[in-house]
Amino acid sequence: MDAIDVIVTKREGGRLSPEQIDWVIDAYTRGEVAEEQMSALAMAILLNGMDRAEVARWTEAMIRSGERMDWSVLDRPTTDKHSTGGVGDKITLPLAPLVAACGAAVPQLSGRGLGHTGGTLDKLESISGWRASLSTGEMLRVLRDTGAVVCAAGGGLAPADRKLYALRDVTGTVESIPLIASSIMSKKIAEGTGALVLDVKVGSGAFMKTVEHARELAATMVAIGADHGVRTVALLTAMDRPLGRAVGNALEVAEAVQVLAGGGPPDVVELTLTLAREMLAAAGVDGKDPADALADGSAMDVWRRMISAQGGDPDAELPVARESHVVTAPATGVLTRLDAYGVGVAAWRLGAGRARKEDPVSFGAGALCHAAPGERVTAGQPLLTLYADDAARFPRALAALDGAVEIVPDGAPDLLPLVIDRIA
Amino acid sequence: MDAIDVIVTKREGGRLSPEQIDWVIDAYTRGEVAEEQMSALAMAILLNGMDRAEVARWTEAMIRSGERMDWSVLDRPTTDKHSTGGVGDKITLPLAPLVAACGAAVPQLSGRGLGHTGGTLDKLESISGWRASLSTGEMLRVLRDTGAVVCAAGGGLAPADRKLYALRDVTGTVESIPLIASSIMSKKIAEGTGALVLDVKVGSGAFMKTVEHARELAATMVAIGADHGVRTVALLTAMDRPLGRAVGNALEVAEAVQVLAGGGPPDVVELTLTLAREMLAAAGVDGKDPADALADGSAMDVWRRMISAQGGDPDAELPVARESHVVTAPATGVLTRLDAYGVGVAAWRLGAGRARKEDPVSFGAGALCHAAPGERVTAGQPLLTLYADDAARFPRALAALDGAVEIVPDGAPDLLPLVIDRIA
Repeated sequence: MDAIDVIVTKREGGRLSPEQIDWVIDAYTRGEVAEEQMSALAMAILLNGMDRAEVARWTEAMIRSGERMDWSVLDRPTTDKHSTGGVGDKITLPLAPLVAACGAAVPQLSGRGLGHTGGTLDKLESISGWRASLSTGEMLRVLRDTGAVVCAAGGGLAPADRKLYALRDVTGTVESIPLIASSIMSKKIAEGTGALVLDVKVGSGAFMKTVEHARELAATMVAIGADHGVRTVALLTAMDRPLGRAVGNALEVAEAVQVLAGGGPPDVVELTLTLAREMLAAAGVDGKDPADALADGSAMDVWRRMISAQGGDPDAELPVARESHVVTAPATGVLTRLDAYGVGVAAWRLGAGRARKEDPVSFGAGALCHAAPGERVTAGQPLLTLYADDAARFPRALAALDGAVEIVPDGAPDLLPLVIDRIA
Repeated sequence: MDAIDVIVTKREGGRLSPEQIDWVIDAYTRGEVAEEQMSALAMAILLNGMDRAEVARWTEAMIRSGERMDWSVLDRPTTDKHSTGGVGDKITLPLAPLVAACGAAVPQLSGRGLGHTGGTLDKLESISGWRASLSTGEMLRVLRDTGAVVCAAGGGLAPADRKLYALRDVTGTVESIPLIASSIMSKKIAEGTGALVLDVKVGSGAFMKTVEHARELAATMVAIGADHGVRTVALLTAMDRPLGRAVGNALEVAEAVQVLAGGGPPDVVELTLTLAREMLAAAGVDGKDPADALADGSAMDVWRRMISAQGGDPDAELPVARESHVVTAPATGVLTRLDAYGVGVAAWRLGAGRARKEDPVSFGAGALCHAAPGERVTAGQPLLTLYADDAARFPRALAALDGAVEIVPDGAPDLLPLVIDRIA
């Protein structure tokens, strides 16, 4: 087998054979297929596609490049959620303890922020003492003791995906549905969950800008899950505006805690409950109603134990940025537009995200939205508060908001429904 | 400017701007754009194409990555030929001295063998003492003293092309007409020739398998030449069977010397004269008739001086391989097929070519064809003699000839005309 043969097969629009896929993923992981060869192959895949059988085998080969976790020693079924990433998407924080409080186990390997989108691990690290890195033994202990664990994936899990993901990031080969789908699913399947709910975000703040692309990605991932014996459901959900009111690491933790305390913005509560019901149904768990687990404080109990088990102090004060800047409404009327991408880029520039992979994030940086699309606002009222550790960051963040806000005297916003579609 | 922007522009089927092209070639040459980024871009170009303006700018940027030679101090116009590569294509050897003998100057930078195709420098190095590497000063001296120089390109000439060529070779991105055309033309234009005749080979032994592809490549290169003020003409010529009778380094030198002595196979003589007339016409030189320069020995005189000027001994005995093996005709009839690719691969496996770039070639290895397609043969007569330094090489070479020879009792070969088309 030879890298050029594999590249040329896909370049000419052919189907990669199972043997070609197994060989190229294995040889790439071992460094025998060079980075420049894999990037040419990734571009050929992006432009010429892969069919369902190819994607399934590609995913399988990436899973086999490392270990596959096994939670069968637990006395409850496992279920997990994965979001394709958005602005203000803190759903994992209330969701994981909520689902655990309802009787399932949630073994979630999470990621860090990418571009204008936030990352669950960055958010949780704003809690003093909390550790993202756990050994498999520690993961099992936290999962057994609390019902939920959210931590970083170890290097032994789908190492081929880890390498390929970093390569795609710098070679303009991210936006390939077969490659996105196999990357997500290889990690989730290797993570060992028995059931999986995918939250595929759609809109300006998401990687998928259109419902059509999101539906294709969702269908591809659901098929991969089915092919690997993981009960998989996908929801297409709105990312044309930020989710909830808080965007930024510690700001989002605070909002998540509000939800666990029975409050919080209605869209965050609704999506958390909807995803919790899907996760429990996919796992076949018929325990508590998630709404009750929020109301009776049992989800909050799991949250506190889960944070403590990973070294975090659930009572610690969250970091606050040193500087703030209030953006006021320029007119009176209905807020018809609060663009997710604009707010996401603003938060990124305020320090909530990273310019380079190795940069630290600012835990306190971000934005609080004081109005949601569809609400009436009055000229001069606070619309957004921006937070940063350095006031020099405000001008570029404000530039990102240019055109992101629209107020119309008697307008009505043209928004995506919170849950657009369900694919099973 | 950013590599990913450039890659994504081409990936999405857009036109690269002049600024994008200039930046990406310069940044790649300096190592700021990584190999894996350029290979993704090369694949996107291969699959989505480049238009005439993009190809012209791409070529220009590669020329500007290094020096451009200047022969204006010479008292005669310069003209050169480039072949896209074939099997038994030793035409440069008699052609360069022949054109010089007729009054033009030929400053030819040549290459080495690639895959199953031979390289002019490898052939000339089979002459004892001959040196391929010359400084620009030495090149000028040989050119002034003899009228022709054939040598290796220095590292200062189109370094971007040198880097990109090596990358494409290992990433399945060779077969792109815009990339092939700009690679060839950047070197030829940087070489400083005033006129250029392109010999675009067509058929099994060539990189272009069909007349349509060859015509597209030829038209692209002629347009680039015109855009850079180099008078450029292209001929499409046959490479469905080997050119002449000899395939292999020293074997081809011997055949070239036969042509210079007034003999040699008729197809080699005809193509040499045709190309010589085109080169002289493109340079506007109206001196001797090339046929006369072969007949009166003046081309041979230039050959001897040219070889001597680069340290070679024109009277030295050429290397002979230690082992030989005769392939006999399996039947009586007309030789309807002697496939260029099959014979080329056989010669490659016998040692005339390289498995890896850093391998040496065997000067004596190769094949002599004792019959040409269209000739009658008798069962048992010698058809080919194979030469190698190690008899262990014969079985794999014979395997390459499997299916390459066809003899039909009363058949007629279906051959391409020697000169298929002319594009100016």
